[in-house]
Amino acid sequence: MGALGRLILGRPTREFAPRARPVIYRIRHALPLLAPDALSSVAYAPDEILLTLAAGGVVALTLSPWVGLAIAAVMAVVVTSYRQTVKEYPEGGGDYTVAKENLGLRAGGLVGGAAMVDSLLTVAVSVSCGAQYFGAIVPALEDHAKVVAVALVALITLMALWGIKALDQTVIYAVYLFLGALVLLGVAGGIGHLNSTLGKSPAAAFEVVPTAPYAAGLTTLGAAFLLVRAFSSGAVALTGVQTISTGVASFREPKPRNAARSLTFLGIMCGGLLIGILLLAQRVGAVFVANPTTELAYPSGQLVGPEYHQEPILAQIAAAVFHDSWPVFIIVTALVGFLLVLAATTAFRWVPALMSMLAQDEFLPKQFSRRADRRVAAHGIITLGIGSAALIWLMNASVTRLIQLYIVGVFLSFTISQLGMLKHWNGKLPLAKTAPERRRIRSSRAVNALGLALTAIALVIVVVTKFIYGAWISLGLVGAAFWVMLAIRRHYRRVADELKLPREGREALGLPSRVHAIVLVSAMNRATARAVAYARASNPDTLEALTVAVDMARVWDLRRGWVRADLPVTLRVLDSPGREITRPLIDHIADLRTRAPRDVVILYIPEKVVRHWWERFLHNRSAARLTSKLRHIPGVVVASVPWQLDQPPDPKSN
Amino acid sequence: MGALGRLILGRPTREFAPRARPVIYRIRHALPLLAPDALSSVAYAPDEILLTLAAGGVVALTLSPWVGLAIAAVMAVVVTSYRQTVKEYPEGGGDYTVAKENLGLRAGGLVGGAAMVDSLLTVAVSVSCGAQYFGAIVPALEDHAKVVAVALVALITLMALWGIKALDQTVIYAVYLFLGALVLLGVAGGIGHLNSTLGKSPAAAFEVVPTAPYAAGLTTLGAAFLLVRAFSSGAVALTGVQTISTGVASFREPKPRNAARSLTFLGIMCGGLLIGILLLAQRVGAVFVANPTTELAYPSGQLVGPEYHQEPILAQIAAAVFHDSWPVFIIVTALVGFLLVLAATTAFRWVPALMSMLAQDEFLPKQFSRRADRRVAAHGIITLGIGSAALIWLMNASVTRLIQLYIVGVFLSFTISQLGMLKHWNGKLPLAKTAPERRRIRSSRAVNALGLALTAIALVIVVVTKFIYGAWISLGLVGAAFWVMLAIRRHYRRVADELKLPREGREALGLPSRVHAIVLVSAMNRATARAVAYARASNPDTLEALTVAVDMARVWDLRRGWVRADLPVTLRVLDSPGREITRPLIDHIADLRTRAPRDVVILYIPEKVVRHWWERFLHNRSAARLTSKLRHIPGVVVASVPWQLDQPPDPKSN
Repeated sequence: MGALGRLILGRPTREFAPRARPVIYRIRHALPLLAPDALSSVAYAPDEILLTLAAGGVVALTLSPWVGLAIAAVMAVVVTSYRQTVKEYPEGGGDYTVAKENLGLRAGGLVGGAAMVDSLLTVAVSVSCGAQYFGAIVPALEDHAKVVAVALVALITLMALWGIKALDQTVIYAVYLFLGALVLLGVAGGIGHLNSTLGKSPAAAFEVVPTAPYAAGLTTLGAAFLLVRAFSSGAVALTGVQTISTGVASFREPKPRNAARSLTFLGIMCGGLLIGILLLAQRVGAVFVANPTTELAYPSGQLVGPEYHQEPILAQIAAAVFHDSWPVFIIVTALVGFLLVLAATTAFRWVPALMSMLAQDEFLPKQFSRRADRRVAAHGIITLGIGSAALIWLMNASVTRLIQLYIVGVFLSFTISQLGMLKHWNGKLPLAKTAPERRRIRSSRAVNALGLALTAIALVIVVVTKFIYGAWISLGLVGAAFWVMLAIRRHYRRVADELKLPREGREALGLPSRVHAIVLVSAMNRATARAVAYARASNPDTLEALTVAVDMARVWDLRRGWVRADLPVTLRVLDSPGREITRPLIDHIADLRTRAPRDVVILYIPEKVVRHWWERFLHNRSAARLTSKLRHIPGVVVASVPWQLDQPPDPKSN
Repeated sequence: MGALGRLILGRPTREFAPRARPVIYRIRHALPLLAPDALSSVAYAPDEILLTLAAGGVVALTLSPWVGLAIAAVMAVVVTSYRQTVKEYPEGGGDYTVAKENLGLRAGGLVGGAAMVDSLLTVAVSVSCGAQYFGAIVPALEDHAKVVAVALVALITLMALWGIKALDQTVIYAVYLFLGALVLLGVAGGIGHLNSTLGKSPAAAFEVVPTAPYAAGLTTLGAAFLLVRAFSSGAVALTGVQTISTGVASFREPKPRNAARSLTFLGIMCGGLLIGILLLAQRVGAVFVANPTTELAYPSGQLVGPEYHQEPILAQIAAAVFHDSWPVFIIVTALVGFLLVLAATTAFRWVPALMSMLAQDEFLPKQFSRRADRRVAAHGIITLGIGSAALIWLMNASVTRLIQLYIVGVFLSFTISQLGMLKHWNGKLPLAKTAPERRRIRSSRAVNALGLALTAIALVIVVVTKFIYGAWISLGLVGAAFWVMLAIRRHYRRVADELKLPREGREALGLPSRVHAIVLVSAMNRATARAVAYARASNPDTLEALTVAVDMARVWDLRRGWVRADLPVTLRVLDSPGREITRPLIDHIADLRTRAPRDVVILYIPEKVVRHWWERFLHNRSAARLTSKLRHIPGVVVASVPWQLDQPPDPKSN
């Protein structure tokens, strides 16, 4: 690892974030560490609900609390089902483990692929949304949300690489401060509402212009379709709940019970916050539309035009509630933005663990299974950073567009996981001995059946209503990830089959008849002498030194040195009409192999080991090329005999 | 070499341009192959002379033929001295060999560095100038000279990589056509002048506005300084003459005589063409200035402004001479542009040879000495292509600015080479036996003394007058190249010293006391079995199999397989508290080395050889990292035992 590598990856001795053994936390620390993902989705879900309903005009907007209620109901089912999951799979692993154990490895692979894509999107969504909140405080940033978001991703990536421990502590504080800010917002808003001193959102002054299909008024069918679309957008609030099921191992004993409690608590919190935010948004007249330029108008009927910057809902609420004390508005909005950005760290903590699980099942290159190895984990972290930054850039940091990509993968995992749990109970039922046990299993199964029905419906709605808006992109990405993972697994399986020892393994373990040692030499020096000595020490059946005659003057020098050294090894000079080095050697060795196919050829290559990276360009170039070609000839072993240059002489070695 | 490599480098079987043994040509083919460099400089030198004189206004322009005459005189001396060089150094090698043999390796290195930089600049200059001529025919290209020039460099680079034989033939034709075009131009111009039917250059209608220091009129001192600067710019016409001295080997026997003849012929041609072009330019009123926007005015006194495009001198002459038949104008101008672009191929032919010479003297990495190896030669060609394209881009394809960089290196080489020849004669003089021989040596020495005086003066003038215009850049580049070359040579010398066998070499050749073989295993399979079999076949003093316990399940699998295979080798499992692979192994082996420092450890690593490049990411990653770390421990040999995946089973091997 060079200086640059050290700069990017941090010092090798510093502790690395994805540790080999998970650190154990109390609930009051574990929950905030695992919660930001779910809490952040509560921050952006209301925007998506209002945005969808706004297409139907002002009347449609009054329906928003009902949409929130529907989502909270689904969340209750999902939370209940994940409580069961953490109890049944206390080792963690989440949806991937559930799918793999109950529906087979391929289903697991599909969930794994979806989880990889979702981890990119969760970073992209929450950082982009965080950039919006910072833009609401510092208007100069509003026009550069894309750049701000990518810079934040870069910062988080570096912090994850350095494994800064303070990051965990910061996340815990940020969650409590965020919750505090929202409670403050709710209490102050409620008091204001009762005293009738509640302000209005700055956007409340505008008229919402219904978009084309709803311009003529809202039909019953139109309203139903709008509600369905609003539900499918708002369903993004459900994301992040499953994170706890992946982190069971981080809780104190009894792990499953603590995790289940945390889940319930998180579910109640998220559901309550979502409905609360939607109600407050209605009271303050918050308005959020897809295209402010064409959908917002002054009371005079004139469109607001491209100059207008739309603030996210929580910023609008904060502006209304704290309209008479802007420092509080700034603090509350900043805390929301801060939590959104830190929510991305959940994915950075999770991805190396996910890749390690996938690698253990041979869905990814084997080296990823060693996530304690900082270099290996760094690959996952860097990929996540670059991938999510690319998505932000391509989608112009548009939260709405990114969410349309995001929820497909989330609901795909949800649905497969529910199906897996259903099968899990079906398998467990016949083994139950007592009636209460059977009853318990049946009722658990009922929860998952309901969960399956709800999430499957939501998945269908999401795919149908969002297909052209981006769901096709995420389906494509998930499909591609799945395809690559299957290809990798197939490769490993094929290799394992090829390498499997036959039942009567003895003949495969037979020794080669004879050993031919060849020392490759180009000049007579200490490195050559060492290679010859080592080759002789291994007592081969035949031993010769070999050189290629590219430059006759050098060959003569070599011959002279050889004679002077008086070595008991013959020096053979290979002709090279084309003045090439590799070809004649390959031919010679291949020839040797053909004449004695049951023998083994060991080629000793003296190699100079340099201390500085740039010196590598000055040595061993032909040896490197030769080695890479020789690897394809069976029965040839390449033994590199190193000579360490520039090192204090080792009196003990020769 | 992958598909992309093949696409860029061409098929391995196709013949490659820089051949191992030079092809022998008759004079009528060898001369045109070596001449384009010199001829092309005659095409752009007049522009530079007129451009410098134009600063002094119209009066100064009348002096241009005198400047041409001075340059022709210097050329006569330079040609005479190079005639001597080719006779004394018939193996070729040019200035580098002369400097090295007479002034020592460091002087050779300096000339070599200058030659490397000049090869970049000769390509940049002649292609940029060629782009100007094409712009004179196709006005749409005029605004994009930079892009056109870079595209042409890319094309030439690819042709050089592919080693297209037709290129040589094309160059020969292009030279004869270029000469034919210039003779036609001269004859038609001369007849036109006698009949008074000669047209005027389109630029003759403009007034030349003298620049600031000369605006008040031309003083004697001012005129002298202008003349000196014009001479130093026009001296670029001398470049390319030395090319013949590097290509003596390409001539038929008697090589030195044929080369000397060619030199004389080339010198007369270049001198004649230069003076002829300057005279014709004066007759047709050709005007060429550094900044047309500020230095050219309509007769009304109004400046021509940035819209005006200035054509190069030969295009202006052709336009005037063939003012009544534009097809002839187009053909003549295109032939000039064509030759200028093809002149760049000389550098592409020369650079691999130069790098080979420098590498033989250890100024460059050794692999460059094998220029018959297409991969090695390709490095030089690609470097030349990218470097010259970068110079064109940075200098905005401005011929004038590039020439200011170019001539410094050229005259540096000229001067050192003349000094070398002077020393050569001084060394030869005492050995001469007869009086005529001594006389001949003395007169030869006088030529080189004169040459040294002239080129040294020219070098000083060039450096002084051009320093701030770019000479500092090329001096910096030459210095950097020289510094890198010296560093490389120092490195090789130090390594050679370190590796030198002691006089009483016997004890250095002593055998290690014992051989410890270690087979690195991670799973029980055929690849492992093969590695164990090969290790056993080499009859080591001790033999053990080693694995690192990262994943206990895998270790148990391995142990079971080991017992079932009933191998007579113990399997040792190393603990890894940090779940790392490399560290425990390194520690174990280092420990072994400390306990028995006179022994040698051979580590057998079973390695899976894959067929597709992408499969490399799936295997041997830990082995590769381990190997690169083990190289730094003395007395450890890494023997890789390959298992070729996916290959037809070889019944003969085990």
